[in-house]
Parts: sequence; structure tokens; C-alpha cells
Amino acid sequence: METRTIDLFDTTLRDGTQGEGISLSSEDKMRIARRLDQAGIDYIEGGWPGSNPKDLDFFTKARDHRFDHARLVAFGSTMRYGNTPEKDPNLMALVEAGTPAVSIFGKTWLFHVHQALGITDRDNLDLIRQSVAFMTAHDKEVVYDAEHFFDGYKDNPDYALQTLQQAAQAGASALVLCDTNGGTLPQEVSEIVRTVIGRFPDTVIGIHAHNDGELAVANTLAAVESGCRHVQGTINGYGERCGNVNLCSVIPNLQLKMGYDCIDPDKMAKVTSLSHYVSEVANVMPFDHQAFVGKSAFAHKGGIHVSAVMKNPSTYEHIEPETVGNKRRVLVSDLSGKSNIHYKSDELGIDLLSYGDKVPEIVGALKDLENQGFQYEAAEGSLDLLIRKITGEWQDLFELKGFRVIIEKNERAEVRSEATIRLLVNGEEEHTAADGNGPVHALDAALRKAICKFYPEVDQMQLSDYKVRVLNEKDGTGAKVRVLIDSQNNGTSWGTVGVSENIIEASWQALMESMAYYLQQQKITTENHS
Amino acid sequence: METRTIDLFDTTLRDGTQGEGISLSSEDKMRIARRLDQAGIDYIEGGWPGSNPKDLDFFTKARDHRFDHARLVAFGSTMRYGNTPEKDPNLMALVEAGTPAVSIFGKTWLFHVHQALGITDRDNLDLIRQSVAFMTAHDKEVVYDAEHFFDGYKDNPDYALQTLQQAAQAGASALVLCDTNGGTLPQEVSEIVRTVIGRFPDTVIGIHAHNDGELAVANTLAAVESGCRHVQGTINGYGERCGNVNLCSVIPNLQLKMGYDCIDPDKMAKVTSLSHYVSEVANVMPFDHQAFVGKSAFAHKGGIHVSAVMKNPSTYEHIEPETVGNKRRVLVSDLSGKSNIHYKSDELGIDLLSYGDKVPEIVGALKDLENQGFQYEAAEGSLDLLIRKITGEWQDLFELKGFRVIIEKNERAEVRSEATIRLLVNGEEEHTAADGNGPVHALDAALRKAICKFYPEVDQMQLSDYKVRVLNEKDGTGAKVRVLIDSQNNGTSWGTVGVSENIIEASWQALMESMAYYLQQQKITTENHS
Repeated sequence: METRTIDLFDTTLRDGTQGEGISLSSEDKMRIARRLDQAGIDYIEGGWPGSNPKDLDFFTKARDHRFDHARLVAFGSTMRYGNTPEKDPNLMALVEAGTPAVSIFGKTWLFHVHQALGITDRDNLDLIRQSVAFMTAHDKEVVYDAEHFFDGYKDNPDYALQTLQQAAQAGASALVLCDTNGGTLPQEVSEIVRTVIGRFPDTVIGIHAHNDGELAVANTLAAVESGCRHVQGTINGYGERCGNVNLCSVIPNLQLKMGYDCIDPDKMAKVTSLSHYVSEVANVMPFDHQAFVGKSAFAHKGGIHVSAVMKNPSTYEHIEPETVGNKRRVLVSDLSGKSNIHYKSDELGIDLLSYGDKVPEIVGALKDLENQGFQYEAAEGSLDLLIRKITGEWQDLFELKGFRVIIEKNERAEVRSEATIRLLVNGEEEHTAADGNGPVHALDAALRKAICKFYPEVDQMQLSDYKVRVLNEKDGTGAKVRVLIDSQNNGTSWGTVGVSENIIEASWQALMESMAYYLQQQKITTENHS
Repeated sequence: METRTIDLFDTTLRDGTQGEGISLSSEDKMRIARRLDQAGIDYIEGGWPGSNPKDLDFFTKARDHRFDHARLVAFGSTMRYGNTPEKDPNLMALVEAGTPAVSIFGKTWLFHVHQALGITDRDNLDLIRQSVAFMTAHDKEVVYDAEHFFDGYKDNPDYALQTLQQAAQAGASALVLCDTNGGTLPQEVSEIVRTVIGRFPDTVIGIHAHNDGELAVANTLAAVESGCRHVQGTINGYGERCGNVNLCSVIPNLQLKMGYDCIDPDKMAKVTSLSHYVSEVANVMPFDHQAFVGKSAFAHKGGIHVSAVMKNPSTYEHIEPETVGNKRRVLVSDLSGKSNIHYKSDELGIDLLSYGDKVPEIVGALKDLENQGFQYEAAEGSLDLLIRKITGEWQDLFELKGFRVIIEKNERAEVRSEATIRLLVNGEEEHTAADGNGPVHALDAALRKAICKFYPEVDQMQLSDYKVRVLNEKDGTGAKVRVLIDSQNNGTSWGTVGVSENIIEASWQALMESMAYYLQQQKITTENHS
């Protein structure tokens, strides 16, 4: 087994959906499956057809789709004791799923054989052998998942190896060692994998790690270093409890740092967008600090770091962010100097060269505003407006004449929020009113009403995130409040910020800048195209 | 060095604040520092006094506080080339910080010595030696942080070791190997640490890992296995880019699985609440899937898992959740709920024995409210009211008939907030109005006006803290909001909570309960004295 090629087996659609807060429709699953195929994943485990109708439905849909690269896999357990294979509903569901490959999990740990199945050691070995043999007889490629392999091995190494032996002899194409409880340490993984490889030198050995000790990536890398050539995991590490191993970290580590061959090099640059796509479809907030693909993974804040990175990025970056499709971000904070502003302006598409003399004014304004509690790190929309206002590039698209927000709670404990806005747009005064779930929601609705006649494109943008932070908490309800709003349009997102002692006023600032920034970007795009 | 004792060095307050989205006031820092001290952390790095006034302020505050266990540490760089130590502002700021220990970072990697500092190999060695020696001469314990140690070592092992040699000879108590860019692999860490230990067998060697490869925990464990006895990290892994190593994972792995001695065993059960406390103060959403301490870390969703776990938890759990103060979450059982309620009631001084039959109702109400987004961990005032309402011990002291809040912004950009309240107190209707800095401040003022005639003691209490968290951020401005208010009177403090889609209504709930709880406590005290 001298190959350095790794088989990637994704189980986002099966084990990933066991994670708290993850729920995918069969249509969601199809979208993710197509994307995994494009990303160069070798095996896509789609679900457990014997366990629920949603997964059954997915396999029916998937049958009509032609995957370019990946093999689709249906998952299930070994047959139930006492059945014959042809009469076992679980095995028959696997046959009927119509996939080229199946994965079958069986028990390794005698504790489970006795406690959960209530059968003898020998019976369990028979179940494994018969189940695998039945599927290979139906021309299925069989991936054998040895559940609780490491715990079982530590309890009784001999029996653990016998279970693998049964699967191998019955024709399994890969024997996958599962750290089901996720508590094994890397040094234990290395040692146990080496023993298994020694016993099965001609079979592909796989690893399936969970993250209960925050060690899933390390356990997977250790297993590969010890000879595993099949790696199971999920996108973003979704999965039961603390999740499965995160393929978005495993793939770059194996390929870029350790010299293994996982996916075509041109696909490596799509790992970041794959990660974001899956979190979007799963409707899970992306984790900004995620290794390699997170929004903050190459974000530099400390002053020393920023000036060094600008001289030479490798001073504070372990890889080039572009390799995995991510990008460097310089955060503007109270430590910022001129170099941060130049860098940021380039990024925002503002040509500062023509306004060189304005840079000290921008730096000054920024420090002053940050001192008041504004924060531009996550509010690039507001930063863009601030810079353009100082350089004179900015034109107000509307002007506020006033707003009023009323929140009322009546005797029947009903709460109502209403906002009215007076706005000057293109010389016309618009006076609108709207209700909302809360005061900010009402303001948002009234503002949209006021400008949509002039800028119908405002319907294309949505607020996607709203955050509030009390700045000087000790002042109780008289404290200053910072509001951060994220908005998005077609996959592009931007943040804006507002600060005030009045939470409604702070929200208004962020709300208003969010729309102003969006409309201005639309204008720039239109002008560039015409 | 045959000890298995590990020195824990926390840098949440310094390196942790370099993380995107993390910003702590000096008061926040004091609160976290006190908690770290209670948690058994050995060293608390509080900030870089030479770099910004906020950190300077923290050290001034900290000087008046007596830590029971931890040593406070001020962080700074080696002196600037060309200075003498007495004239170096950075070193002098470290002396003046008044801490028993300091950490000094210096350059290991010649690439940085030449590119960033622009000095010779020899000059850099001199800077390290002189800086460390100057601090030890001022009776400071010096922890030496070798920045970019692994990258520097891979580039030029001989020079990297010489830099350590300088620090050791000048009296550093620990030499800390930093994986500053976070890209080193565990096997490299093991190998390099072993060489260093071989060269400095009598000095404490430390590890400082970053998570850019999702390997920080594994790198830290590998370093300890290879002989490191000083571990740096942050709570929840906060820090620049992908964060520092997460101490909430390192501590349980080292102590529970590898047999090292990090903290008193009774403190292990407080790791989960430590993690939550720090995320609460930093106002960062806790990561539910976080190893050991996350809300989902012992949550079982899959049908097979749930039934097996109910038979025997070790079937799908790598450790007992209680060991780290976490809990199993299985939807079926409410046994843990009941015992929690008994425990909490004791703490609040409510005698539940007389109301034993009410306990299931309390558990049910609590689960229902937590499901809606209420959280009672930091809102014991609200919990007290909830329990007393169900046991019938509670008497309403006033009744809301209605409120109205108006926030207005006029053409001159002036913002005004007014609240009116109608309240029934002792059968009399009070109708009051008040202005405020913001809507909640106005509500607070109007409520006080309405009740002070009947309960003049309300003047003795103040709101001391006001926090807002958006619960379902993805819903933008239509999201649910949780408000936590802390109040105090004569050094006693209590928290209350409100949840609504309307931030004003959520604030009202917390505000009203804060006063209701206070007045009731006053009543109980008076009754007990008479």
C-alpha cells in the first residue's frame, strides 16, 4: 500500500444530520450532494434508507442524477439476529436504494454485543459476515464501519480484529475504524491503526473520528500517517454531540502540509465556498474562526501583525489564504495606522491615491469614532461610507427629516410597535408608517416603504443578522449601545454599525447605512457597466 | 523534571482580545480575572500595558485586588534596539504594571529579525538577554515567549536554541515555545519539543499553540507528552484568526485522560460554568458543539444512541458529563431537572419541602421558558419569582395597566425618548411620565415615579448592568431578543431576564422583575425582623 492517495468519504448527509440544530430536506440533500460531487469527494453517504422515509425519498431522487465523480452510498446496520438476509428489512432497503456502494456498521465492542444486541460473540461475527456477503453478492461495493472500534479494541483487541476479519473475508472494500464516542487520543489512534494495518496489509483501512475531545482532526491525520487511506468526515464538522471530523480542515492539512493526494489542486481553491454553501443550505451560522475557511481565519487585528503581514504575509500566515479560496482581511481597530487604511481602501475598491492628503483625516475620524464606541472591524459598509464621505466621493441618496417610534403595551398585555418616517428622496418628501414585531423591525419596514418607489432594488437586500452590545454596562439603562447589522444580497454580505445611548437611534444608524451602502454599490456597478 | 504537574497560563485577557469580535472593558477584564483565579489558573496574563491605555487601566485596578491563587502577568516585547532598558518605554511600563510576573516575547525566526526589526542576529540575542535580565533585576518572575519558535527552528535550529539560551541565562523561569502562525503539525511539535527539553533539562518549557490547522489542542497535548510543563491558552479558544488553544478542552484531556495534574479535582466540575461565564462577559454566543462544555456536547439525538445511553451512558459518552460540570441531555428524562430545582431553591432560601407536589410544575415551566429563550443561569431574581409564583408564596406589589414609549428624532437630529406608565399600586392608579437617555432609561424613570410613593426604598436600588443578546440572529430585526439586567443594593446584586421579539418589552420584563424581586426581599427581611 504505497499510495499517497486518500479516498474521501463524506457523511454530512447522514452523520452530519445527527447534529443538534441540523435538519435537511431531501431537496437540501440533493443540492449538497451535487456540490460535494463537484468538489471532488469520492464517496457521498446520503442517509439511512432503512430508518426513515426522508432518506428513502432522497435515494429515489438521487437515482435520476448522474454524479461526475462521486459514488453514492446508502448506510445501514448489520442484519438483525434471527433474520435471513433476504428477509431483513434493513438490508433490503440498502439493496433497493440503488446506490453503487453501501456502508454497513457492525459491533466491535463486546460490551455492546452483550448489552445492546444481547447476543453471543460468535453470533455477532456471523451477522457481520452474512450482511457484508449478501451486499457484495448484490454487486454492491461495501464499506464496513466498525463501530466503537477503538473502545472495543482497548477492551478486547483479539475480538475487535476478528470482526474486521469477517468483513474483509466477506468482500468489504474498506474497513473503517470508528471512534464513535470521540474520546480517543491521537497517540492511541496511531498505535491501534498500525496494528490493524499490520494485520490487513492488502485492504484499505479507513478512519471515522468524532470531536468530543477537540481532537478529531489530529486523530484523522494520525490515522493517515499510520496507514489509513480512507477518511470519513463532514463539511464544517457537523454531527452528533461535538460533531464529526471537519473535512474542510482535514483536506488542506493532508494535501498542503503532509503531501497526500485528496482532490484535484484546482478544487482546493473551492473549499471555502463549499463550506459556506453547506452552512447556507443547512441554515447554520458559519463559524467565523473556523480553520482555513472561516471569515476570521486570515484576519489580522494587532498592529504589529498588520504591518508585518503587509511587508510579507508569511510572517503571520501559515498558508496563503487564496490556496483554499479564502482571503486576507485587515481589521480596522483603535490600533490602526495609515497602512491599515490604505489596505482597507484597496479592498473596498476606493482609489485613495487621488486623495492621499485625506488619509490623516480618515485615521483621525476613525480613532475618534472608535473612542465613542463605534467598531469597524465587522462593519465594512459603514467604513466604506465614512471614507467616501471624507474623500467627497459620497452622495446622499436620501435625507432623514425625522422619525417617531411608538411601543405600546395595553391592559391585555398586547404589545404593538409602530414607526413613522419622514424622508427627503430626490427632492420629494415621503411620509410613511409601518408596524413591526418590534421597534427596529417597524423602522426597517417604514424606511423600505419610503425609498422603494425610487430604489426598487432595495427589495433585493435583506437584513441577515442583528447584534446589540452594551458598551458601558455599569451605567445600567443609561449606557451606550452599539448595534451591528449584517445585510445581504445574492450571497454578498456587508456590515454596518450604529452607536448611541438610545438603542433605537443606534439601530437606525446601522439600518440606514446598510441601505445607503447597498444602493451606492448598485450605482457603482451600474455605472461601470454602462 | 519528573513532575506531572502542569502550570496553566491563561491569556484570554491579552491574546484572546486579539480575536475578531472580542472587546473587553477593563471592568470586564477584572471580572474574568477574578473568575480565572477561582478556577485554579496559575498565571493570568492581563494585557500589554505598553501598548494601550485600557490595559494600563486594568493593571491599576488589579493592584487593589488580592488574588487567592493566580499570579498576575503583564505582557510586553523585548526592548527596542538602541535603547537602554531604563529608557525603554515598553520595559518601564512592565515594571510599573506592578505585577509579580511578566511575560516578554522575543524573536526566534531570523526572517523576522532581519525583516521586521532590521537588526543583526547578534543584536537580537542581546535584546533578549538584556530585557529578561532587567526584569529579573526588578524582582519579576519572567516567562519568556519565543515567538514563531517552530517556524524559526525549522529555518535555523541552532539560532532558535541560542535565543532560548539567552533568556534562560538571564533568569527566565519558563521558556515558552510559540506556534505563532498556528500551522505546525503535532508530529513536528513532538520532535522539536523533545530536542528543546534535551537541551534545557532543568528549565520549565512551555507551549503556546494557535488553531489555524484545527490542531491546537493536539499540538498542546503532544508538547506535554514530550515534556512541556507550562501550557498557555485561552478560555473557549478566543484569539487572533482561528484562536488560541482552548483551555476548556486542554484541561480535561490532560487531567482526566492523560493523568496530568492541572487543577484541584473539585474545580474540574466548574469548567463548564467558567466557559459560559467568559462568553457571557465577552458577549460572544457560546458554541453549542464545543467539546466538553458545549450545550450539545452530551446531547443525544439519534434513536439508537438515546436508548443505549439510557441503559448505560458510557455506550456513547467518552466521559461523565458531570465531571466537567456539563450535563447529559436526553429529551425523555426530567430527573436532573427536579434535583436542580431543589438545589436552586435551597440556594435562594425557598423552603420547597412544603411544596413537594409543585416541583414537576416548576420543572415544566422552566423547560418551557428556557425553550422560549429565557435563561435563568444569570437571572436568579427571575427564577426566585417564578418558583414563588408557582408555590403561591408570591404577592404582586403592583400591576401594569399599560405603558407607551415614544422615541422621536427631529429634523435637527435631536433624539428624545419619553415613557408613560399606568400602574395599579395598592388599589390606586398611578399614571406617570418620564424622559430618558433612551427608551429603557425612560421606562425605568417612569416606573420609579409610579411606585416610589408606596415603596420609597426603591431609591436605594440601582440597575448596574444591562445586556442584550439576539437569540435567532438569522432573522435580522425580526429576531427574538433576551435582555439581562443586573441590579444592586448595598453590595448585594441580582439578575433578571426578559425575552420578546420586541426589545422594549423584553427590557420591561427584566426591569419590572428587578424591582419586584428587590421589594419582595425587603418585605421578607422586614417580616423576619419584626
